[in-house]
Amino acid sequence: MESFTDIKYILDSFLMLFGGILVMWMAAGFAMLEAGLTRSKNTATILTKNVALYALSCIMFYFIGYNLMYGEGSSFMGGGFALSGFTSEGLGHSVMADFFFQVVFVATASSVISGTLAERMKLWPFLIFVVILSSVIYPIQGHWSWGGTSLGGLIEGFSDFAGSTIVHSVGGWAALAGVIILGARKGKYDKEGHVRPIPGSNMPLATIGTLILWMGWFGFNGASQLTMGSSNDIDVIATIMASTNMAAAVGAIAAVALTQLLYKKVDLTMVLNGALAGLVSVTAAPNTGMGYATTVGAVGATLAVFAVPFFDKLKLDDPVGALSVHLVAGIWGTLAVGIFGNGKFMPQLIGVLVIGAFVFTTSFFVWKVLDMLLGLRVGEQEETEGLDIHELGLEAYPEFKRH
Amino acid sequence: MESFTDIKYILDSFLMLFGGILVMWMAAGFAMLEAGLTRSKNTATILTKNVALYALSCIMFYFIGYNLMYGEGSSFMGGGFALSGFTSEGLGHSVMADFFFQVVFVATASSVISGTLAERMKLWPFLIFVVILSSVIYPIQGHWSWGGTSLGGLIEGFSDFAGSTIVHSVGGWAALAGVIILGARKGKYDKEGHVRPIPGSNMPLATIGTLILWMGWFGFNGASQLTMGSSNDIDVIATIMASTNMAAAVGAIAAVALTQLLYKKVDLTMVLNGALAGLVSVTAAPNTGMGYATTVGAVGATLAVFAVPFFDKLKLDDPVGALSVHLVAGIWGTLAVGIFGNGKFMPQLIGVLVIGAFVFTTSFFVWKVLDMLLGLRVGEQEETEGLDIHELGLEAYPEFKRH
Amino acid sequence: MESFTDIKYILDSFLMLFGGILVMWMAAGFAMLEAGLTRSKNTATILTKNVALYALSCIMFYFIGYNLMYGEGSSFMGGGFALSGFTSEGLGHSVMADFFFQVVFVATASSVISGTLAERMKLWPFLIFVVILSSVIYPIQGHWSWGGTSLGGLIEGFSDFAGSTIVHSVGGWAALAGVIILGARKGKYDKEGHVRPIPGSNMPLATIGTLILWMGWFGFNGASQLTMGSSNDIDVIATIMASTNMAAAVGAIAAVALTQLLYKKVDLTMVLNGALAGLVSVTAAPNTGMGYATTVGAVGATLAVFAVPFFDKLKLDDPVGALSVHLVAGIWGTLAVGIFGNGKFMPQLIGVLVIGAFVFTTSFFVWKVLDMLLGLRVGEQEETEGLDIHELGLEAYPEFKRH
Repeated sequence: MESFTDIKYILDSFLMLFGGILVMWMAAGFAMLEAGLTRSKNTATILTKNVALYALSCIMFYFIGYNLMYGEGSSFMGGGFALSGFTSEGLGHSVMADFFFQVVFVATASSVISGTLAERMKLWPFLIFVVILSSVIYPIQGHWSWGGTSLGGLIEGFSDFAGSTIVHSVGGWAALAGVIILGARKGKYDKEGHVRPIPGSNMPLATIGTLILWMGWFGFNGASQLTMGSSNDIDVIATIMASTNMAAAVGAIAAVALTQLLYKKVDLTMVLNGALAGLVSVTAAPNTGMGYATTVGAVGATLAVFAVPFFDKLKLDDPVGALSVHLVAGIWGTLAVGIFGNGKFMPQLIGVLVIGAFVFTTSFFVWKVLDMLLGLRVGEQEETEGLDIHELGLEAYPEFKRH
Repeated sequence: MESFTDIKYILDSFLMLFGGILVMWMAAGFAMLEAGLTRSKNTATILTKNVALYALSCIMFYFIGYNLMYGEGSSFMGGGFALSGFTSEGLGHSVMADFFFQVVFVATASSVISGTLAERMKLWPFLIFVVILSSVIYPIQGHWSWGGTSLGGLIEGFSDFAGSTIVHSVGGWAALAGVIILGARKGKYDKEGHVRPIPGSNMPLATIGTLILWMGWFGFNGASQLTMGSSNDIDVIATIMASTNMAAAVGAIAAVALTQLLYKKVDLTMVLNGALAGLVSVTAAPNTGMGYATTVGAVGATLAVFAVPFFDKLKLDDPVGALSVHLVAGIWGTLAVGIFGNGKFMPQLIGVLVIGAFVFTTSFFVWKVLDMLLGLRVGEQEETEGLDIHELGLEAYPEFKRH
Repeated sequence: MESFTDIKYILDSFLMLFGGILVMWMAAGFAMLEAGLTRSKNTATILTKNVALYALSCIMFYFIGYNLMYGEGSSFMGGGFALSGFTSEGLGHSVMADFFFQVVFVATASSVISGTLAERMKLWPFLIFVVILSSVIYPIQGHWSWGGTSLGGLIEGFSDFAGSTIVHSVGGWAALAGVIILGARKGKYDKEGHVRPIPGSNMPLATIGTLILWMGWFGFNGASQLTMGSSNDIDVIATIMASTNMAAAVGAIAAVALTQLLYKKVDLTMVLNGALAGLVSVTAAPNTGMGYATTVGAVGATLAVFAVPFFDKLKLDDPVGALSVHLVAGIWGTLAVGIFGNGKFMPQLIGVLVIGAFVFTTSFFVWKVLDMLLGLRVGEQEETEGLDIHELGLEAYPEFKRH
């Protein structure tokens, strides 16, 4: 260590590693949240999916995705293999630290999907989809924004600090395409259009999952500053962390208040999703300030609380509410930058639409092909008896008697 | 980055952010601990309370509490709104990092309370109490110590490094005031004065909760050094972390040994509370050294093991043992500074008494008013059937058959 | 702060503290993993063992072990008491930070053992073994490698970056010695030699346990660089973290693929153990690069998947697969350094054999003596009815009806 430049290099790289660890930890958050909000006969399957999707996302993004996202290439996509074209030279931080921080974001996008499609989707087509999402779909759209090409100017001016759109709504669009093809769980909607609630089997898991995500989000948003090489940078990071926390807090409390008003009883699952919706919402501009975080988080949670019955009306059956949290609040958070943040609404709208259209259509195509080749959905008996004993051959809670 | 001053600013601010994340994580620890040590019919409610109390504490402390604690004002309390009077200028670190680190401490104090009052307290009066605690009661007493006024000299010389008294016993006093008014759970004490044990429903949750708290405490105590701008500072932080770990370890082992001796069987819940009591005890002076941590932690855990049946004798029904852990060990830890640490016992005793008297009386008053206005306690049927289906309308484990 | 030397001192010490916190957190990982993979009638006991073993390891290593490992002495062992001979002077980092980072490693080694011996071993002899392991056996072998003596040249050139052998296989050898004496759980193997599967009771716990370990491993391997005082060091740390993640990911996916091929169904417990085997395997040289991590992790997981039925063939009953993960993959990972890493195979082989022989024989002797003095194994009735109600007098899930 001989210069301030060295120190900046060290601190910036450390920030990314620190953030990356926290975002990796979000994989446990998604796993627990989804295990808690689904039925116990499908719990081991959703756990398997979550571990495998994290692992696959990391592998594919290393060998292919990162190169398509950040490598030299066209304005549409980059190229290369296994980071061979990358070096820390002239970058100001360790390229492997950058990779480590980026790779866990892809896993987050993939995680969003597994919840929406839970309890009736086969394991293998899901894993194949994750391979394609993390090696192709996610990186290509990421190339336009964080990769810096603006898709040849089309999304010029689009701003998404830590990924309300680029990560969360991307996962949401892919999930939406999947659920349209997959259909609702058996018994969720009856012929008269009534919605039958299917309660999650384990609220402590859902709660710890949410709090893990909350914690991990400090890395997700905070380390997205990408540098802490000046007093000003660390000030911004501090603002980001306090704002992130505030958005989650007002999101949770908005859901407490709303469910009390609407349903006369506080609904814990909505409170958890309210906190998450607050987090997703602020993610596009967590560096703006506490007032922004408070407003945007509260509105995001409110939208999520109303989106849950809305998706049910459309018979889009989302066992964990991921569409409401990641797609709806993700879009909201991105647009909010143009409304309350930098005041440039049109680039935000165009970015949301372009990225949404790309991810939705490519995902729809991939799901469709997978459906034709392998079938996305388990058989009726499998769904009734539970995916665990059919898809896995083991149970999540083999000793506990069930109703 | 151009100077060593910049680097110190960056490192100090980062330390607070790092510590703040770990302390935020303690919210999950309390949630899991309390969910594990209570009955499954009340689990969703205790989870809801824990998420909501964390969120409310953060919101209220931002808008009001932090200003009363650290703002300009009298020696009794500060003033201001939403940090408007604060700036990083001349502070040597980011003011938002300071806020982030402080705000999670308030949530810790609030968390202490929910466990003691679990399984029979209504949701809404509890949340209102949290609002008052985090915006008024906690900040005012904090103004005297960490805010620097010594209450006009009254608690001059009082030393509480990371909050054995200022955080933990404050939560304990507020809980004590509440439990006196609220009364014991139905069936806990029979007419002959016998104590009926009510086992917690989920020991893995209680265990992970404790280990989360243990982990988070490294931030709680370690980052309370507030700076790592010199070799000496990081030496102290290292001592703090090793000491914090040691106090928890001897606390756990003291409880292993004591429960084996007293009851002929090791009691896991006591082991967990022993570790926590060790942590609370060392918190007033974790920078003293390993010998201090060993002694103070072991004594603190011993006191907690004996305090549990003691509170039962007083018919103060504390489902999770929070009074034993946070109030008793909190007082012990604060007094221990005067006995084994700096040798100044009287300021410690005065600080404990003054802060205790203030928090207990104000809390008692608030609980009393809430009891008159709203009623603190759920109805008999609600308590028997469980708070979850009455207060929330959902269950924590809807599929698992219960005895 | 006045010089770059100060900053290096601060950053290096902080790295160790940061890593130490993450490794401490692995105690929760082991506790949850083992609680999830065993039967619910023994869950509270395994939790108690895990908390107590962590606490005891920390206490014993402070007072005795660290001194034997790093103190002045012979090439066989060091000496001293309670770090009295140690000072930060001339060390380049805080000695307490070094201690904090080292002490949590001992707990990891101890943790490996409790899983293998679960569901039929008495609490107290186990705790006594942990005392001896952490104060004598572990530190002595650590003195040869990380303590720097090469055992008088015998293991000269042996390289084990973060402890595939020194930590993980040490725990594995001690567990192997124990299980040989202890024998299999009742009903695991019938007279015809058939293996009866005994499913774990709680898959979400096993999963979160694995993900906690995965997260903690970033500290385990990353902070084992021991310094981040130059750009090159942080580059190495970044490579370590990305490689650690990659090894776990390919380990998990190797197990997904293998169990699908071998058993026609993906086995979640194998996927979790595959990830862990990948982590253990890469630990001896996580600083080598991504290609190395990919290869070594995949092979390690494959070995673990085949080792599980292999140990069953030998009637070595390991409820959680710790021998396959920590012993087999630990040996593999250490040898792999000589094959794919530095190309020096013989020192690796000699190190594995010497350390293995020492730890196995001393452990075997200690287990044998404990068996004669106290008996290692609970009675038949205790084992049938569960250790929790006999050894502890409380149950992990008292309210849930069991089959």
